[in-house]
Amino acid sequence: MSTSKQTPLSIGVIGTGGMGTRHAINLHRFVPGARVAAVYDLDGGRAAQAAAQSGGGAVFADPLALIQDPSVEAVLIAAPDDIHARLTLACLAAGKPVLCEKPLATAVPDALAVVEAEARIGRHLVSVGFMRRFDPEHVAVRTLGHSGAIGAPLLFKGVHRNASAAYGVTGATILINSAGHDFDSARWMLGDEVAEVRVLGRRSRPELHADTRDLLVVELGFASGALAVIEVYVNAGYGYEVTAELVCQSGTAVTQQPDRALVRAAAHRGFPVPSDWLSRFQDAYVLELMDWVAAVREGRVFAGASAWDGLVTLLVTGACIQSLESGGVEPVSLPTRPTLYGP
Amino acid sequence: MSTSKQTPLSIGVIGTGGMGTRHAINLHRFVPGARVAAVYDLDGGRAAQAAAQSGGGAVFADPLALIQDPSVEAVLIAAPDDIHARLTLACLAAGKPVLCEKPLATAVPDALAVVEAEARIGRHLVSVGFMRRFDPEHVAVRTLGHSGAIGAPLLFKGVHRNASAAYGVTGATILINSAGHDFDSARWMLGDEVAEVRVLGRRSRPELHADTRDLLVVELGFASGALAVIEVYVNAGYGYEVTAELVCQSGTAVTQQPDRALVRAAAHRGFPVPSDWLSRFQDAYVLELMDWVAAVREGRVFAGASAWDGLVTLLVTGACIQSLESGGVEPVSLPTRPTLYGP
Amino acid sequence: MSTSKQTPLSIGVIGTGGMGTRHAINLHRFVPGARVAAVYDLDGGRAAQAAAQSGGGAVFADPLALIQDPSVEAVLIAAPDDIHARLTLACLAAGKPVLCEKPLATAVPDALAVVEAEARIGRHLVSVGFMRRFDPEHVAVRTLGHSGAIGAPLLFKGVHRNASAAYGVTGATILINSAGHDFDSARWMLGDEVAEVRVLGRRSRPELHADTRDLLVVELGFASGALAVIEVYVNAGYGYEVTAELVCQSGTAVTQQPDRALVRAAAHRGFPVPSDWLSRFQDAYVLELMDWVAAVREGRVFAGASAWDGLVTLLVTGACIQSLESGGVEPVSLPTRPTLYGP
Amino acid sequence: MSTSKQTPLSIGVIGTGGMGTRHAINLHRFVPGARVAAVYDLDGGRAAQAAAQSGGGAVFADPLALIQDPSVEAVLIAAPDDIHARLTLACLAAGKPVLCEKPLATAVPDALAVVEAEARIGRHLVSVGFMRRFDPEHVAVRTLGHSGAIGAPLLFKGVHRNASAAYGVTGATILINSAGHDFDSARWMLGDEVAEVRVLGRRSRPELHADTRDLLVVELGFASGALAVIEVYVNAGYGYEVTAELVCQSGTAVTQQPDRALVRAAAHRGFPVPSDWLSRFQDAYVLELMDWVAAVREGRVFAGASAWDGLVTLLVTGACIQSLESGGVEPVSLPTRPTLYGP
Repeated sequence: MSTSKQTPLSIGVIGTGGMGTRHAINLHRFVPGARVAAVYDLDGGRAAQAAAQSGGGAVFADPLALIQDPSVEAVLIAAPDDIHARLTLACLAAGKPVLCEKPLATAVPDALAVVEAEARIGRHLVSVGFMRRFDPEHVAVRTLGHSGAIGAPLLFKGVHRNASAAYGVTGATILINSAGHDFDSARWMLGDEVAEVRVLGRRSRPELHADTRDLLVVELGFASGALAVIEVYVNAGYGYEVTAELVCQSGTAVTQQPDRALVRAAAHRGFPVPSDWLSRFQDAYVLELMDWVAAVREGRVFAGASAWDGLVTLLVTGACIQSLESGGVEPVSLPTRPTLYGP
Repeated sequence: MSTSKQTPLSIGVIGTGGMGTRHAINLHRFVPGARVAAVYDLDGGRAAQAAAQSGGGAVFADPLALIQDPSVEAVLIAAPDDIHARLTLACLAAGKPVLCEKPLATAVPDALAVVEAEARIGRHLVSVGFMRRFDPEHVAVRTLGHSGAIGAPLLFKGVHRNASAAYGVTGATILINSAGHDFDSARWMLGDEVAEVRVLGRRSRPELHADTRDLLVVELGFASGALAVIEVYVNAGYGYEVTAELVCQSGTAVTQQPDRALVRAAAHRGFPVPSDWLSRFQDAYVLELMDWVAAVREGRVFAGASAWDGLVTLLVTGACIQSLESGGVEPVSLPTRPTLYGP
Repeated sequence: MSTSKQTPLSIGVIGTGGMGTRHAINLHRFVPGARVAAVYDLDGGRAAQAAAQSGGGAVFADPLALIQDPSVEAVLIAAPDDIHARLTLACLAAGKPVLCEKPLATAVPDALAVVEAEARIGRHLVSVGFMRRFDPEHVAVRTLGHSGAIGAPLLFKGVHRNASAAYGVTGATILINSAGHDFDSARWMLGDEVAEVRVLGRRSRPELHADTRDLLVVELGFASGALAVIEVYVNAGYGYEVTAELVCQSGTAVTQQPDRALVRAAAHRGFPVPSDWLSRFQDAYVLELMDWVAAVREGRVFAGASAWDGLVTLLVTGACIQSLESGGVEPVSLPTRPTLYGP
Repeated sequence: MSTSKQTPLSIGVIGTGGMGTRHAINLHRFVPGARVAAVYDLDGGRAAQAAAQSGGGAVFADPLALIQDPSVEAVLIAAPDDIHARLTLACLAAGKPVLCEKPLATAVPDALAVVEAEARIGRHLVSVGFMRRFDPEHVAVRTLGHSGAIGAPLLFKGVHRNASAAYGVTGATILINSAGHDFDSARWMLGDEVAEVRVLGRRSRPELHADTRDLLVVELGFASGALAVIEVYVNAGYGYEVTAELVCQSGTAVTQQPDRALVRAAAHRGFPVPSDWLSRFQDAYVLELMDWVAAVREGRVFAGASAWDGLVTLLVTGACIQSLESGGVEPVSLPTRPTLYGP
């Protein structure tokens, strides 16, 4: 790796909204061995601004051109969700490593197409941005749960709260946009595959649209008997918070919030709660990029989520949407897992 | 109340196992205005010992004689579960206030008989020992949840862990013996009635009997739409712990453990975890007795659980046992509530 | 003790300001085996009100008459500080047990007179109201520090913060009124005697009187080499808080605040801080009274502070006042300890 | 900065013991825009190993040759303390930016020589490695203390505990090796200059050498009236811990430990305590290097400690050693501050 430090990996960033710009800046400022060589956004002005903030890479007028440009060695996709799969397939066609923001696709067949294309190629090119896998707090909980020190994991308990959501948010929207993180977290922490789901939903306030389901309780049953219970509440009001607990045979571990200072003021002793995930998971985003860049440069497998993980998350999400409608237990059936993704 | 301080309430205690002896000693040492006047246990020697430890009350050879004795003004029942209802009915027949340890009965018809008998009398004589309603931590959470400061309660989340249980413990046993506390807690915190339940259970260790379900996840759906999720794990290994969280519209409150001292020692910073509920809920037990004695002496209604609460807990427990077997959602149907128990 | 439960200890309360009324009510409501038989206050109306709130004891027009009245078996003094010693001496003259609020006296010779009078009598009649010795959090820290589990105590660290103090409060006033609790706490936790002191003081805000010293840092050197560092800040603004930490050879223990519920609301996660000591130390006040009443009835020594402790606290306070003026280290010299107070 | 990303700053590392090797690896792995171009250690094998672990820079046989080599643009000194000043002066002579591990020197005249040499040059070349200034927890406390949200800072309270120290460690050794961090922290947090000091020391265990002073309590009085109290205990047994609290006019802020997971196991609920500073302050070390590299490349002033800070720390340390011997208060007199270091 010593020589490569002088020749950083040239990355193209597609999509420079909030998340994409954040990734570009993180790459530029905090990730050794990488440079933002190319940027694309439907809004060319926004792309130019992101390029200027991340080291002055070239601005492309077409995402496929960016993907195919010989100067681009790897691609980061933070474009709108509904073109994730198409762009990822283009990267595969170009033989280039790609880190795609979650979700991998918005429909199961599209995700399946990515998995099948990658399996045909036979090596790992696609990574999916479930950044919690790099959050130091989540890593500590998983590591302890897998260490054997407190026995085997039995139950995953997740909490996912957002300060507020758009009026009329449906349960399906929450399941797709928010809960995907929690499904991936549960699978990753338990090291097991979801077999069935049940979702309960309720509306938090009578003034919301009658169909609103902004508070969900999701139960996942896993193949080996493990369980997961996940609270997702997108109008929690007080702020943004994510917690993951692993109940193991003889003990438990639960993520701590990364509080810097305990503050005493105004008849109160406590901690500020962040308003969104960008500050809460800033370290995780950087560590994710660091590992991805290192993995690409060293030719090893990314430590984060794969295309398979992206596909399974979509399948679980789909079963959850069905359960929310049926009120009952819904099975999750997975396609055969290509050998590329493990035994 | 000033004059009555000189003439304490004479209480008869039936059943002097661990819990009953604890109650007798608590009455003697910590509850002003009360004295343990009479004691009964099937094991006469144990009764005599409990009497000696709690102020030297008379030892009776028959529980019904104790209930009917004119010197006994109120009765505390800590006998085996299966005679709770019969003894409580005898207290009603004698027109005497009674605090019955949970469960009120082991079968629904018996609990119903108590409710109907009390309703016919038309005044509150029966109290049920769900002591968490007096635990300062639980009271603080409920008070905040009902204050409006963080909006209305939407979701109750309970954790109930025991260090270890007997080999081969079934889900039904756990639901009857342990989870009753949690059902009462959820109803009391949410101020609502359970409409349906679902229970998931699993075995924590392969070396346990195949039918063991020592880790349960219980979901309760309430009449008004509120939800409850309760983890009950009776082989948690590390110790005894109960937690209750109330997720409200714009904030949450969660019980704290009553930790006295933070200890740093041996590469560790933290708190000891108690091994059982007697130490964890000692304050709650005393406060429960204090309120019961004061209520009886002042002729007011006990602040804790009623016979109705005891009955509903049994009905919820029954539905949970069915759900554990069926794997599906089971409804809870309540009889008409007598007006004695509120609107 | 069984028979005595029917004949409670008759207590006379002298002084029914905030603290005295609190004591009277606590005795009435929470302390088995005791009744408030007599009450005195310079303000007769206030005395009558306190009597009415605590069981209807007799109202006396003269404190010495109360002390001498045959119906009064024990005396609780919560009168103004400057008559504490005189009233305590009257109790000794009458041969009656007395619990005197801190300070035992406002001048060393008066406290010495109490000690000498009690030593002549040769049995423990005087108790002093340093209630922290009964606070469960303080007890837990001391117990651990003396258990040997983390080695011997080396350093006591105290924090004592009030929300606000009167304009122009002097360092001497703080040392007398507030820090006495901390001196007693340090001596009791370390089990050692103070040999020298140093006090640093500063004014927290430029708008306060130039002589104000509302933030003090007190260092105590003990006979055996142990140390204590105490922060006393009486204009801390955010609320009332007391903390005690015992640094031992191989670990430390620190008191926790008795938080009931963790609250998440309004971009914040934390705990309310009380505004004064009455709520923070309510349990300690009741436990102190319980032990005092039990000790008197059983003829054993009170578990709390003695007249000797009251005297030493005054001597330490005096040396601290000198140090605050001199800016240097000041010695504390104690009289010979009468054998009544231990070896 | 965009173009410079392709041409990283070439850094020479002098001294590759534990700390120096850690710095070299951190530069290589985590700091964009930097490369370890040259390495020196008295032990050439150790230097070669550090070079191999950090990107394969050249191994030098002489530190002065390294400093003067045209390929080296900036120097990091992690050599033994007693040659820090000499090497730093050589860097100044070569006109090269240098980050010197603390202490800047082991004797005041040597530190003064560095300050005077840099002042003559008239621009900032020397940085000193007080990494706590980059610790996110320390930064959060200082930021809050300086925000005005809880008033102005009045009192700094530091805790600095090591698991164990060498037999016979003297107070002077602790003051030089350990407490320097705390002096810098107090000055930086309070934004003020030390005027006088007092140090109390004691031996933690009778089996240690009679002159051992392994537990120190340091009081600092600042020019403007602010105070600091610092506990330094180098045989604390249970692990490594550093805490900093800022008591402000109307509130306080205290650093939290960066706990990842709360663990429940074996009758315990809590957190592991690290055994040393390398893991506790890993983030701070990396952030320090990031800022230093960025400052050098951008031609701006380093956000951390300057040569002046290094000098003052030595002066405070010297006064503390005197106080430990005299038992009294000792003044700190500073030379005139060159204008380079602020008004």
